[in-house]
Amino acid sequence: MLKRFLLTPGPTPVPPEVLAALGEPVVHHRAPRFTEILAEVLAGLKYVFQTVNDVLVFAASGTGAMESAVVNVVNPGDHVLVASVGNFGERWLKLTRTWGAEVTALEYEWGTKADPADIEKALAADPAIKAVFVQSSETSTGTVNDIRAIGAIVARTPAILVVDAVSGLGATDLKTDAWHVDIGVAGSQKALMVPPGLAYVAVSEKAWQVVEACTTPRFYFDYRTYRAKMTGDGAQTPYTPAVSLMVAQNAAIELIRQEGLENVFERHRWLGRACKAGVQALGIELFGPDDPDANSVTACKVPAGLDGGRITKLARDKYGVWLAGGQGRLKGQVFRFGHCGYFGASDILVGLGVLEMVLAELGYDVEWGAGTGAAAQVLAQSPVQL
Amino acid sequence: MLKRFLLTPGPTPVPPEVLAALGEPVVHHRAPRFTEILAEVLAGLKYVFQTVNDVLVFAASGTGAMESAVVNVVNPGDHVLVASVGNFGERWLKLTRTWGAEVTALEYEWGTKADPADIEKALAADPAIKAVFVQSSETSTGTVNDIRAIGAIVARTPAILVVDAVSGLGATDLKTDAWHVDIGVAGSQKALMVPPGLAYVAVSEKAWQVVEACTTPRFYFDYRTYRAKMTGDGAQTPYTPAVSLMVAQNAAIELIRQEGLENVFERHRWLGRACKAGVQALGIELFGPDDPDANSVTACKVPAGLDGGRITKLARDKYGVWLAGGQGRLKGQVFRFGHCGYFGASDILVGLGVLEMVLAELGYDVEWGAGTGAAAQVLAQSPVQL
Repeated sequence: MLKRFLLTPGPTPVPPEVLAALGEPVVHHRAPRFTEILAEVLAGLKYVFQTVNDVLVFAASGTGAMESAVVNVVNPGDHVLVASVGNFGERWLKLTRTWGAEVTALEYEWGTKADPADIEKALAADPAIKAVFVQSSETSTGTVNDIRAIGAIVARTPAILVVDAVSGLGATDLKTDAWHVDIGVAGSQKALMVPPGLAYVAVSEKAWQVVEACTTPRFYFDYRTYRAKMTGDGAQTPYTPAVSLMVAQNAAIELIRQEGLENVFERHRWLGRACKAGVQALGIELFGPDDPDANSVTACKVPAGLDGGRITKLARDKYGVWLAGGQGRLKGQVFRFGHCGYFGASDILVGLGVLEMVLAELGYDVEWGAGTGAAAQVLAQSPVQL
Repeated sequence: MLKRFLLTPGPTPVPPEVLAALGEPVVHHRAPRFTEILAEVLAGLKYVFQTVNDVLVFAASGTGAMESAVVNVVNPGDHVLVASVGNFGERWLKLTRTWGAEVTALEYEWGTKADPADIEKALAADPAIKAVFVQSSETSTGTVNDIRAIGAIVARTPAILVVDAVSGLGATDLKTDAWHVDIGVAGSQKALMVPPGLAYVAVSEKAWQVVEACTTPRFYFDYRTYRAKMTGDGAQTPYTPAVSLMVAQNAAIELIRQEGLENVFERHRWLGRACKAGVQALGIELFGPDDPDANSVTACKVPAGLDGGRITKLARDKYGVWLAGGQGRLKGQVFRFGHCGYFGASDILVGLGVLEMVLAELGYDVEWGAGTGAAAQVLAQSPVQL
């Protein structure tokens, strides 16, 4: 009878309205109704990406969409720049190297942000760099990069900007067009509030020039095939799509539209602020700077003398609350609260209350109610419903 | 996007497994599969009622089942005893008087329990009393009567004991057979974790003698018709049953069986204890005594100077949390947390955290985290999962 709370940065909780849509009878992907759904989803994704660019939908995980951005852009020997601030930045490094790129790697200490000035310098030093790969929200650390500043720099060069927004899109502001993001990558399973299985890319005209010229072999992820089928009136999918997930994504986008994108961002800001206040009130240090823009995930240092794995295990097994552990080199050193997507004040209260219980059981000196109280005090000030 | 929490004492939250069962294709009520489901539900209800008596199922609300216990027992002019400790006790008074009973009314101050010695005295003073009507858990105040003691007294007389267990069954212990409950009344929508619409009665052999002799006209609620159809092998329903609710009830009973009835009661004990500790830590007085058996609902006095209606309205409109107000003469004086059924530690944390935010907004001097912290401290000690 244990109630389960997914306080992880993906998968994330799915709203009941979306679960209900997921359970609707399967629609055939060539049925007129599915054509409408696809058109609605594509229009909705443009709203969320804040773009007029083409948006393409894949049946894939986020990593599939990340790879798609490499194989459609990078020829062997091409120069690219990767700015890495965590585990998913390292994935850009692996992907670009796998496909034979000559990589300039800007590797930052995990928990810090990429410095736009470094990117500017690197682009100036090597005018052959054809693409810059970076994360919007780095899920492993909670850091959010300054995409607006990076975009302004890259836009002045022939290079294109590829942004992994898998955990950021729909939680933290990302103005694809205004900020000059040439390829934005997202997935269904985080702030877009659908179970995993769909991945999205938004492709600018500047990027299309690169994609059309790219000769790296690709089939399933070939943007050209998708552009031919999936853009314009009467859009179809080139291959059998994950229809039920698409129906669910349509329902989830409708919820985002009803709330309004600005309110969605503001809700996430207050949730992030409350979560950080609660954690710190328990004497736990944040991992990385206390960044008000980092609204998707709150990374916390495991207190000295405690076992990070036991914190997440106890929360999960005894209280049904799934927190995330550390990824990559942070394994055992941090634990993370996700709060991107279908999250509200209730989740923050539950997560911090359970954290108090878990820490107390593990022998940490807990001031009962310090975490939940600090969070409630912040949440009560929110001008938007949460 | 507001998450909604039903922290009311009926309807109560429905587990996802039960919602999924509710959404299954409608089964015909004369199909073999429905016969199996009915048999499983009846067996499951016997487990929950802790009885070998006949259990009958009606498509009705709890009040329908309460009336059924009157029309199958009371002839006009019959002497009955009603022990009332709240709003639902008054409903027994109205129902028995509506059907022409001569009522001895033991009316206790709301928030207190019925005194078994008073019942013993009243039965001794009027040997013609043929039935005693009482609540197990009185939803309007949270009080739980001592049914064991009352049952032992009534069992020594020719009278039968009729217990409204609508909000108690499945949350607080009620041993129908061992405690000599002759007619137990329950509903689907509280601790039985199904939306409203089904009502249940468990009828003892002693009660059947009275029912068979009762000449009050009745049709839809005639226990004799249900006994003929609904007991023994190949049980059917006399009229079209609420099939989907039955399928859902079957799934909910399976969850209760998996957890085990004793663990269910223990979970409710800890939730009640934590809720009371949290409320009191905020300086709010409980309504009535701090009774460790009162596990279905926690009634709280509205603090001086505050408007009870605004507490529940603000919690609902701003935070999506449904608390209950006062009923009958307690309107505006109390507010109530329900925690019977599909409730866990998370609900207590959410309810108290939101209460802190609401009280602060209404100008009450809130010590942030006092309520959630006191509750977490209690919840962390529970030997059972919650």
